[in-house]
Amino acid sequence: MAEPTDGGERPGSVVISVDAMGGDRGPATVVAGIAASADKNPEIRFIVHGPEPELRRLIGRRKGLAERCDIRHAAGVVTMHDKPSQVIRSAQDTSMWSAIESVRAGEATVAVSCGNTGALMALSMLRLRKLPGVNRPAIACLWPSRNPQGFNVVLDCGADIRADAPDLLQYAMMGASYARNGLGVERPRVGLLNVGTEEHKGRGELKLAHELIEGAAADGGFDYVGFVEGGDIMGARVDVIVTDGFTGNIALKTGEGTAKLVGDFLKEAFENSVMSKFAALLAMSSLKRLQKRIDPRRVNGGLFLGLNGTVVKSHGSADETGISAAIKLAFQLARAGFQDRLAARVAQAAPAASASLASDAPTGTAPTGLAS
Amino acid sequence: MAEPTDGGERPGSVVISVDAMGGDRGPATVVAGIAASADKNPEIRFIVHGPEPELRRLIGRRKGLAERCDIRHAAGVVTMHDKPSQVIRSAQDTSMWSAIESVRAGEATVAVSCGNTGALMALSMLRLRKLPGVNRPAIACLWPSRNPQGFNVVLDCGADIRADAPDLLQYAMMGASYARNGLGVERPRVGLLNVGTEEHKGRGELKLAHELIEGAAADGGFDYVGFVEGGDIMGARVDVIVTDGFTGNIALKTGEGTAKLVGDFLKEAFENSVMSKFAALLAMSSLKRLQKRIDPRRVNGGLFLGLNGTVVKSHGSADETGISAAIKLAFQLARAGFQDRLAARVAQAAPAASASLASDAPTGTAPTGLAS
Repeated sequence: MAEPTDGGERPGSVVISVDAMGGDRGPATVVAGIAASADKNPEIRFIVHGPEPELRRLIGRRKGLAERCDIRHAAGVVTMHDKPSQVIRSAQDTSMWSAIESVRAGEATVAVSCGNTGALMALSMLRLRKLPGVNRPAIACLWPSRNPQGFNVVLDCGADIRADAPDLLQYAMMGASYARNGLGVERPRVGLLNVGTEEHKGRGELKLAHELIEGAAADGGFDYVGFVEGGDIMGARVDVIVTDGFTGNIALKTGEGTAKLVGDFLKEAFENSVMSKFAALLAMSSLKRLQKRIDPRRVNGGLFLGLNGTVVKSHGSADETGISAAIKLAFQLARAGFQDRLAARVAQAAPAASASLASDAPTGTAPTGLAS
Repeated sequence: MAEPTDGGERPGSVVISVDAMGGDRGPATVVAGIAASADKNPEIRFIVHGPEPELRRLIGRRKGLAERCDIRHAAGVVTMHDKPSQVIRSAQDTSMWSAIESVRAGEATVAVSCGNTGALMALSMLRLRKLPGVNRPAIACLWPSRNPQGFNVVLDCGADIRADAPDLLQYAMMGASYARNGLGVERPRVGLLNVGTEEHKGRGELKLAHELIEGAAADGGFDYVGFVEGGDIMGARVDVIVTDGFTGNIALKTGEGTAKLVGDFLKEAFENSVMSKFAALLAMSSLKRLQKRIDPRRVNGGLFLGLNGTVVKSHGSADETGISAAIKLAFQLARAGFQDRLAARVAQAAPAASASLASDAPTGTAPTGLAS
C-alpha cells in the first residue's frame, strides 16, 4: 500500500464525515462504530451528521469521544424507501446531504453513510459532481477471495445498470487504483467479466472494452488478464473484476445469498445431533475464524468511484463492527491520498480511450510520472 | 409430480440415449454412472454411443448391464476445445451426434451428454430443431435452495447471451413446466431476475417481460411474483428464476465459486488444530449431510429447453454420481411425459405473447385443458 508522506499519523490529521442516520439500527449503532474506530485510530477526527441533541447525548456517553467529533445538526433523514428522484429535490436538511457537503467543502476527505444506496449515489453525483472524463460513476465492492490480500475488487456493483466500452475501461482504471490504495496490491491484475474466457465470446461492447483495457494496461500500471468468468470473482486469477452494474449487482447478491445458504446449512448440520453439537463446541474457535473470513461486515464498504470526492456506502443493516470496518476503509483511502491519485488516473485514461476508439491502436506513449 | 399413466414402471419402458464420450473422465466413468442408474431403476433401457469395442468391454464387465444397453458405434469424439461452428459441419461420426440422433428418430426419449456445452447445444438445435414458436432455446439449471423441493430452476444459464421480452416469457413457461414435471411443484412461483424488486427499476426489456409474464401466468398454471434479486435464486420466494443467458451464466458460476470457497475455508478451519480435527471427526456424518445438500453433482443436469426433444447436459467433470444424477433427471422427465407437455405449453404461449404485445392487455380467455 502507498504510505502516507505528509505526516498522516498525527492525531486528528484525517477527517472522516459520518452520516449518523438512515441505517437500519439507528444512530446509537453508528456512534458505537465511530467509538470503536476512534479507539483504534488516534489519527482520525470525525464530523458527525444528524439531530444534534441526540448525537450530543450518544457521543457524550463515550469517554474522550466528544473532543474528536464535530457535530453538524441535520433534522431530516433519508429513509430506505425514499426515491432518489425525490431525494435530490428535497433533502437539503438531511444528515446524508450534510455528510456529503463536508467532503464537498473540503472539511473531510471521505464520507461514510449506511443509508439508502440509490439516494446516496444521487446526492453524491448532484453535490460532488462527476470527475472530469467520467461518464458513469461506479460502486466498487470488496469480495472475499483466495488472493493473499484476502479480497478482490468488483465494480460496478449497481451504480448504473448500463456500461459502454469506455465506461468499462474507466472501471478498470478506477478499480486498479482502489486495489492499489485500498488493498495494497502494487500491480493489480484486472479481468473483464464474461460468459467464457475465449476472445470471440460475449456481447459486442465487451469485445470493444477488451481491446480498450488491453491498450491502457501498461500506462495504467496494471496487468490485464482478459475475460474472466463468475468463478474468478472469488478466485486468485485477478484482483479486480470489471462489469456493468446490472451484472455486478446480481453477482454480488447471488454470492452473498449462496454464502448465507451454505452457512445456514452448516448451522443446521451442527444442530443435528448431540454429537455434532459437541463437535461444534470443540471446533468453536475454528468456526469463528471461518466466519470472520467470510463475514460480510468485514468487507462492509461499497466505494463510490468517479466523483470529486470519496464516499463509502456501508450496509444498511451494518452493526458496530460493520460501521467500524467502513470507517477503517475510509481512513485507509484518505491516508493514501486516494482521491487525488484516482483523479489523475481517470484524467489519463480519458484521452487514451478516445484515441483508441478513433485509431483502434493501443495508445499510451505519454509518461505520467504518477504512482497513483 | 405428474404420475405416469401409461405403464411407465414396466422394465425397459423408458429409453435414455447416453453419449459415452466427451467428458473429462472418459467412457469408463459414464458406464459406471449408467450401471448405478440401471441398478436403481429397472424401468430404464439405454442406448449408449461411442467406440463399440471399448463400450462392449466396459459394459460387459458389469453384471446384467449388457442386456439393457444397445451400443451404437461412433468413432469420433467432440472435444471440449472444438468450436460449435466447426462441430456442426463435421461431427456426423461422433458419439454426441449419434446420441442426439436417437432422440430425433424417436428411439429414445431423452439424451444425456457430458460433452462440450456449446457443441451440444449447436448440434441439438441443428438436428432436433427449435419447437414451433420458440425463438431462443434455453439451458435450465437446478440450484440448491431453501424450498421444500430442495432446488430452484434457473434459466437461461447460458444457451444465448441475449433474451428479448418474448424470449423471457417463454423461459417462464418452460421453467414452470420443468419445475412441475421435474421437481413436482404443482403451481410453481416464477420471478424475473432484476437489480431491485421495484417495478420502475431495470432495463427496458425487463419491464416489458414483466408485463408479458404477468399476463400469461394464469393460463400458464403458475404464479408470477414479479422482479426478484440475486439473493432469491437460492431462496424460498420463488421456484423458477427467469433471466438472460449472460446474467444466468455469471450468476451460476458466481454461486458455484462462492459455495466452493466457503467449503474450502471450512476444510482449512477444521485442519487448523488437533482439537478441530477431532471435532471434524465427531461431526463427520453432519458434515457429509451438508456436503450432500450443496453437492453440485446432485444437481448435475443442465436441461436444454425449447427443442423437439429433451437433452440433459451433465458437467464435463461429472463422476459416476454425477452421471447417475443426470440420468435420473432424464428418466424422471421421460416418465412424466415432459416433452409433450412442454410443447403444448409453448404452443399456447406464443400467440399469448404476440397478442399481449399487440394489445398491451392481459390475454388468456382460451381454455387449454392441458395439465402440462
